[in-house]
Amino acid sequence: MSDWTLDERLSDESHPVAHLGLSELRLQDDCNYPWLILIPRVHGASELLDLSREQQSELLAEIDLCGRAMKSLFRPDKLNIATLGNRVPQLHVHLIARFRHDPTWPNPVWGVIHALPYTPEALVERVERLQRLLSG
Amino acid sequence: MSDWTLDERLSDESHPVAHLGLSELRLQDDCNYPWLILIPRVHGASELLDLSREQQSELLAEIDLCGRAMKSLFRPDKLNIATLGNRVPQLHVHLIARFRHDPTWPNPVWGVIHALPYTPEALVERVERLQRLLSG
Repeated sequence: MSDWTLDERLSDESHPVAHLGLSELRLQDDCNYPWLILIPRVHGASELLDLSREQQSELLAEIDLCGRAMKSLFRPDKLNIATLGNRVPQLHVHLIARFRHDPTWPNPVWGVIHALPYTPEALVERVERLQRLLSG
Repeated sequence: MSDWTLDERLSDESHPVAHLGLSELRLQDDCNYPWLILIPRVHGASELLDLSREQQSELLAEIDLCGRAMKSLFRPDKLNIATLGNRVPQLHVHLIARFRHDPTWPNPVWGVIHALPYTPEALVERVERLQRLLSG
């Protein structure tokens, strides 16, 4: 894993939240939705299938952990969980809290409307709440 | 699990491929993409988080199995794996083989173009190839 570095586009479009056992957890800079991204620190991994069974299980546990945190913090109508990677090949998993009143419901979020960046205050508040919940 | 029945819309839009340990495996009736759907036979499950840890692990193993079959059969440029469920609440996981030349690349597939149903011959051929590979 030592050769792993975060993809530049993922880095540009999101903010660090937590360093988990397998993955970096980041917050997508789009306050239209509570939107987390898990990026396993596995050099060269592009597909879920590129992970070993143990790494897949660890990723699943991290998805479960973060999904539960999102459910408890945001009370969404639905969680969208996806690994697409058509534009950014580095393996990453989206966890998006969806609401019947959100701007693209019931469609998927990708490529429909422009991202709405957080204000610095809102960003700090959201990251801190997530960090408190995940470490608690 | 005994009370579980397949959602009507999922049933209408896809064809049975295999009865796996946890999930029904079906082929989406859209020959724009090789597109499989795994539907865990767990009554009332809507989110991945609604499954027990054991069921989550079993689903992950089935995603891995089907993903490997798709990679070997179709040699896609990318696999898209997602559980959204904004329209159909019954828990289901999409596995879609994506190609740089497919009609919506690099966007996600949902809601962009109309489904292109298989001809009966193409459907039978695709389902049989998948079944042979999965049972082999």
